Amino acid sequence: MQTGDGGSTAGQSSRTGESGYRLDRWLDSYAARTRGMTASEIRALFAVASRPEVVSLAGGMPYLNALPLDVVGRSLAKLVSERGTVALQYGSGQGDPGLRERILDVMAPNRVVAHPDDIVVTTGSQQALDLVTRVFVDPGDVVVAEAPSYVGALGVFRSYQADVVHVPMDADGLQPEALNQTLTDLKRAGRRVKLLYTVPNHHNPAGVSLSAARRPEIVRIAQKFGVLILEDDPYGLLGFDGDPLPALHSLNPEGVIYLGSFSKTFAPGFRVGWAVAPHAVREKLVLASEASILCPSSFSQLAVYSYLNEHDWKHQVGVFRDLYRDRRDATLDALNDMLPNAEWNVPNGGFYVWLKLPGELDAKAMLPRAVTQRVAYVPGTAFYADDQGRDHLRLSYCYPTAERIREGIRRLASVVDAELEIQSTFGAHPSAQHPGQPARRVYAPSPDLA
Amino acid sequence: MQTGDGGSTAGQSSRTGESGYRLDRWLDSYAARTRGMTASEIRALFAVASRPEVVSLAGGMPYLNALPLDVVGRSLAKLVSERGTVALQYGSGQGDPGLRERILDVMAPNRVVAHPDDIVVTTGSQQALDLVTRVFVDPGDVVVAEAPSYVGALGVFRSYQADVVHVPMDADGLQPEALNQTLTDLKRAGRRVKLLYTVPNHHNPAGVSLSAARRPEIVRIAQKFGVLILEDDPYGLLGFDGDPLPALHSLNPEGVIYLGSFSKTFAPGFRVGWAVAPHAVREKLVLASEASILCPSSFSQLAVYSYLNEHDWKHQVGVFRDLYRDRRDATLDALNDMLPNAEWNVPNGGFYVWLKLPGELDAKAMLPRAVTQRVAYVPGTAFYADDQGRDHLRLSYCYPTAERIREGIRRLASVVDAELEIQSTFGAHPSAQHPGQPARRVYAPSPDLA
Repeated sequence: MQTGDGGSTAGQSSRTGESGYRLDRWLDSYAARTRGMTASEIRALFAVASRPEVVSLAGGMPYLNALPLDVVGRSLAKLVSERGTVALQYGSGQGDPGLRERILDVMAPNRVVAHPDDIVVTTGSQQALDLVTRVFVDPGDVVVAEAPSYVGALGVFRSYQADVVHVPMDADGLQPEALNQTLTDLKRAGRRVKLLYTVPNHHNPAGVSLSAARRPEIVRIAQKFGVLILEDDPYGLLGFDGDPLPALHSLNPEGVIYLGSFSKTFAPGFRVGWAVAPHAVREKLVLASEASILCPSSFSQLAVYSYLNEHDWKHQVGVFRDLYRDRRDATLDALNDMLPNAEWNVPNGGFYVWLKLPGELDAKAMLPRAVTQRVAYVPGTAFYADDQGRDHLRLSYCYPTAERIREGIRRLASVVDAELEIQSTFGAHPSAQHPGQPARRVYAPSPDLA
Repeated sequence: MQTGDGGSTAGQSSRTGESGYRLDRWLDSYAARTRGMTASEIRALFAVASRPEVVSLAGGMPYLNALPLDVVGRSLAKLVSERGTVALQYGSGQGDPGLRERILDVMAPNRVVAHPDDIVVTTGSQQALDLVTRVFVDPGDVVVAEAPSYVGALGVFRSYQADVVHVPMDADGLQPEALNQTLTDLKRAGRRVKLLYTVPNHHNPAGVSLSAARRPEIVRIAQKFGVLILEDDPYGLLGFDGDPLPALHSLNPEGVIYLGSFSKTFAPGFRVGWAVAPHAVREKLVLASEASILCPSSFSQLAVYSYLNEHDWKHQVGVFRDLYRDRRDATLDALNDMLPNAEWNVPNGGFYVWLKLPGELDAKAMLPRAVTQRVAYVPGTAFYADDQGRDHLRLSYCYPTAERIREGIRRLASVVDAELEIQSTFGAHPSAQHPGQPARRVYAPSPDLA
């Protein structure tokens, strides 16, 4: 999917070429914040991984063939003929009032209670992450985040020169005692903690959800330390069992910014997400968004609005849920059959299985061999701001069919078996020592990793 | 158009309410950069100005009724049925390769020569302004810009805590001697000048174009001081006489970032713009864009791509050109007839007339009275980072019909006459003294001011 030219960047290494010629004449002009912006080394691999013969268990792309494209097409033609001069024009920086009204319905199952004025529509919830960070984070401020965390959020935090401090999760999500301890330590150290970033539902990449019992605890701890919660919830409607759990926002609206998205429940191609924020914060977000993009796309917003009005979107979410449940089952079955010596969680919603390799294999070092065997995944290190996650990887079951998933895991298992055999013969692979790797780095996100 | 709640913001003044209650509990958490983010005082007025009975000469909205909406509607329906799963999916962070190829054609009249790989597609060219500033500007760095300058660019620069230093223009655009002197002074003062921001064609708000003779001079001066030029060109194809002048980019591609947009030549509602940048800079812009929004809207990009492929877009640009020329003429005729004691330029393209009020009247102080008389404009102060422009205002002739323009200027003239009469009776209006105004402020842009 990525069309850039892979992993090369104009880092410090390109200051002088072999002949002493300076390759990037603007190298001395870049802002300090660009030092945290580096292309992922795995990009070039993903360019290969997007070939059709490769089973990609890497990307978080929703399975759009399940959408009623004829309905969407008709509704867009109608939109242009009936409201074309509005849909094609500039709009409000805060977002279309009609869409903001409908977003309330979309959040109702997660019990987010708000007024349309509390909502800012953004260019995907990624832009909301960017705006919140822009409004709150000075260089050197701390953002507390789950270990692991969504790679795109880590990229934003780093681009604003935040220090990300991870707090461990378990099968019930973020651990309250660990959060309390981390915030206590940070307070004692005099650090300014600006945000607690969390994906409480069907976590990317960990696949777990924050339990109902822990939700008030997490909210209380954040409140005690005066830390604003940034609740990122793209998968809240995509749970496989039972009703959605109440959003953290529902427990303390003044202490939580809630982010939602249509990318996983409808279509990412419109780039429509939103933030719900306390009044004064919402005003700042609108100003920041106007500085950044003037206004979100009127066309995209009205396209989503029309879809919500003219189609049974709740039924469609159910279709997606059933589809992804089946694919999750296919993934778990295949892992049980073919990779029994690995460890993984059982996600009860969302797109991802978080897998621990056997024998402390290094998922990043193994990736080139996996891609050669025509299967792709995201190495666990992508989801940490520090050096954790080497023996983990993320498998996405959202896009390939069950049959392709099974084939992909068969290929993955054969790579793992070969690695284990090499390890038992020669000891740990040299690349597992990671000579010269910096201790802390963050990959810039790319759409492949969404 | 603006649907926010007007001019109120949670500034320092809301730290404590009358009862000592803290209205914004996150006030102490905001990043330093938010101190430059303030809502324009004229927002509330624009909420009124968007009423149909008001002739708005304020906004820079293109006249979309001149578009073939039936063609657009059909092409979108076709897009969904033929490429729906691509159009609705995530795409590349750099932008759709097919669209980037077509953008080369769009830039050809301005003689921008590039490769599709040199282009980054953005969420309107506003996002390109944001990304360039993000990549280059540290707090306290200097951006040199024309006096006056596009309000949206000033908002971006301020949000990254840049100091904007203005250089005067005349009827031939930016003055080379003044630029040379300013850069000499800044160098002597040890300031880091990161960008020269310029709108060389049909300037917003000044309405002038940089003459052909000055273009190589400006490029040479920037090169001499090692300053990167940020060339913002949304109006390059909308000249009323003769062929477009060559872009600054064509004179030194390694020293210029060129920004283009489909907002004025097709439709702003898709939010599709682009940047052409030197290779290493382009890579950083892509990483910054991915951190900010993951990827631009696939749907919007393919909508523009389909339009460019399936419609005679050059003819359509000609239609817009003729339309705006007529409205420019209507504006100048009406000014000649009804406001002969004001001064203004004769724009040879674009959307704007820049007008100097007679008698040193204060355009901002006069705005409420103008809106009461059902005519709106943008006061000149919006277009400066310092306190200049009080006796100027911007008139946009792009959106209202010739008849409405004439009526609007009739109303404006009656307000000006009444102000002049008050002035001759009582002396200058007290508000012209601006008690308590900070010396330097920048309005956050809003879609009204695009």
